Amino acid sequence: MEYGQKGQEVFKKIFGDKADGIRKMLDELSPGLSGPGIDFPFGEFYAKDDLLDLKSRELVTISSLVTQGSTLPQLGFHIHAALNVGCTPTQIEQAILQLIVYVGVPKVLNALKTYREVLEERGQS
Amino acid sequence: MEYGQKGQEVFKKIFGDKADGIRKMLDELSPGLSGPGIDFPFGEFYAKDDLLDLKSRELVTISSLVTQGSTLPQLGFHIHAALNVGCTPTQIEQAILQLIVYVGVPKVLNALKTYREVLEERGQS
Amino acid sequence: MEYGQKGQEVFKKIFGDKADGIRKMLDELSPGLSGPGIDFPFGEFYAKDDLLDLKSRELVTISSLVTQGSTLPQLGFHIHAALNVGCTPTQIEQAILQLIVYVGVPKVLNALKTYREVLEERGQS
Amino acid sequence: MEYGQKGQEVFKKIFGDKADGIRKMLDELSPGLSGPGIDFPFGEFYAKDDLLDLKSRELVTISSLVTQGSTLPQLGFHIHAALNVGCTPTQIEQAILQLIVYVGVPKVLNALKTYREVLEERGQS
Amino acid sequence: MEYGQKGQEVFKKIFGDKADGIRKMLDELSPGLSGPGIDFPFGEFYAKDDLLDLKSRELVTISSLVTQGSTLPQLGFHIHAALNVGCTPTQIEQAILQLIVYVGVPKVLNALKTYREVLEERGQS
Amino acid sequence: MEYGQKGQEVFKKIFGDKADGIRKMLDELSPGLSGPGIDFPFGEFYAKDDLLDLKSRELVTISSLVTQGSTLPQLGFHIHAALNVGCTPTQIEQAILQLIVYVGVPKVLNALKTYREVLEERGQS
Repeated sequence: MEYGQKGQEVFKKIFGDKADGIRKMLDELSPGLSGPGIDFPFGEFYAKDDLLDLKSRELVTISSLVTQGSTLPQLGFHIHAALNVGCTPTQIEQAILQLIVYVGVPKVLNALKTYREVLEERGQS
Repeated sequence: MEYGQKGQEVFKKIFGDKADGIRKMLDELSPGLSGPGIDFPFGEFYAKDDLLDLKSRELVTISSLVTQGSTLPQLGFHIHAALNVGCTPTQIEQAILQLIVYVGVPKVLNALKTYREVLEERGQS
Repeated sequence: MEYGQKGQEVFKKIFGDKADGIRKMLDELSPGLSGPGIDFPFGEFYAKDDLLDLKSRELVTISSLVTQGSTLPQLGFHIHAALNVGCTPTQIEQAILQLIVYVGVPKVLNALKTYREVLEERGQS
Repeated sequence: MEYGQKGQEVFKKIFGDKADGIRKMLDELSPGLSGPGIDFPFGEFYAKDDLLDLKSRELVTISSLVTQGSTLPQLGFHIHAALNVGCTPTQIEQAILQLIVYVGVPKVLNALKTYREVLEERGQS
Repeated sequence: MEYGQKGQEVFKKIFGDKADGIRKMLDELSPGLSGPGIDFPFGEFYAKDDLLDLKSRELVTISSLVTQGSTLPQLGFHIHAALNVGCTPTQIEQAILQLIVYVGVPKVLNALKTYREVLEERGQS
Repeated sequence: MEYGQKGQEVFKKIFGDKADGIRKMLDELSPGLSGPGIDFPFGEFYAKDDLLDLKSRELVTISSLVTQGSTLPQLGFHIHAALNVGCTPTQIEQAILQLIVYVGVPKVLNALKTYREVLEERGQS
């Protein structure tokens, strides 16, 4: 299947200087995986930022990953992404805290630990 | 435990003419449940709309409920809530569609069915 | 595999007049399923009621089913079972309510609905 | 994003006389959803039946849907699909039963109920 | 929102010499989180130990955490808590083992590993 | 409960030189756990390889473990098992990749990482 350029561009814009590393990681996990794993989702969904802006899209993604519980590495990447597209640390923290109501306290604690690690890595803690 | 007025007010503002029915439903399921089930979460989290606006909060909630999969009745209520606080149908639809990337196609199909039912109930389909 | 008598007896004791119907349902879903689906778990685990009493065992099962969210029919059966072995309605209700802290409000609401239906069926509401 | 013909063809081959109805259902849930929801996954993954045959692919899908628990409508469709591509009822039943070991008894019971309904619809029960 | 003293007292009673460390951890993850994350749940639910005793409450919590699978650090804390309020190691082990029937073998193995680590830390293995 | 020889034999055949270590691990986690945790499932389900072959059974198990997300150690063991009974690395990789459609990208990335580690351990990367 052919994936156009759009997904690559949006992905690069969102993930910034981490974009190339993530792309390389996917293609090492399975050759060509960056097609269905990056270019498809970012070209098909995130690229439509006129229909739903990137800040909202990243909060939606973060909420799903907190709810899943077992995908903390990806949660970390998307907390970076949310900050890159303009979410404030407070907005991300509030989104995670609110999930106490929907997934309970334990998953939220684990997510906040990842959140703190990302802020520390970026020197924003 | 005493819950202040704030949660009641925010809940009423978000759920509009459905608010009283939902409160009654909770208190019939378990006497006093509207305290920890409504006044606590809405007073503690949603009320802080200066830190994260209500539209973003509802998208975060919708994302968690789509991800859980087994909470379609509550998803329906929060699609109403999202529309009440100013999300457009398109924004909600885009948020659900994007979750194909994070929870797969089947849960998204079931969520979109609930989304269509809410729009139909509101005469917005 | 041979399953002894013990599982059948414990199952009968716990589920009372619903036991035969549930056994029949399993064997109609898949011939012989009552072996691995009933006689094994009740003979291997529930039968050890000297190590953990049946009331505690049923609360443990109810908690797992509330947490899973998508297994409400089985939750209903085990609320019957909990009542049969001596749990009070209040104890079951408290166990479900407490799970707000660990799985969030929506799954608890759906579980309480099942709880109310069981009480009504038994004329205990 | 452009999706080629391949996904449409594989989807048609697998779902037979249900294919058009499912495609229509997706596009009614969200205009154009059959692109990312059908043509992408079937063109990108199922089409590679030289790397993993369609019977194995359908058993993999069935296992994931049984494990999720809240996606019984899609489980039904994929039991049809598994039968269409040559799985026997016994093989599907064995796959579901084995999942008792990995997801527990309750989800397996709900899945077997769906399995029986599909066999009945096809006159194979 | 104001949380009374009750939650703090019950939490202290249940978690003993780990209570202060957990409270500090929560407030470092998010300032003030010990309010909604500790004082609310312990004051609202656990404090009602006349309606459901603390030993049962801890088994209910352990069951939910085993079922979630991705919350092993919190499972460890609540195995400590269960032992603190009077559950025997055997009762906790039986509760976890029984969950093989409801969540399958793999999650139970991971939970038992956490259980063994807690016993070892307490010199009870 | 008495478990026959059959489960032990099938387990040994599938897990090869890892079989004894896994059995020992289970019995150290809980004395006698290898009965309900190994001999039961392998004697009751996997032993029926005339009804569903072992390669298909292992792909079914892998799919469930990828979907659960929080059981990566067990996923690793069953990727070994799948290779032991004759699945090719490509078939396993394709099975995992296809699950992007049903569980989303993040769980698949974590599963592929485990897959790569197993291949490396076996010198097949």
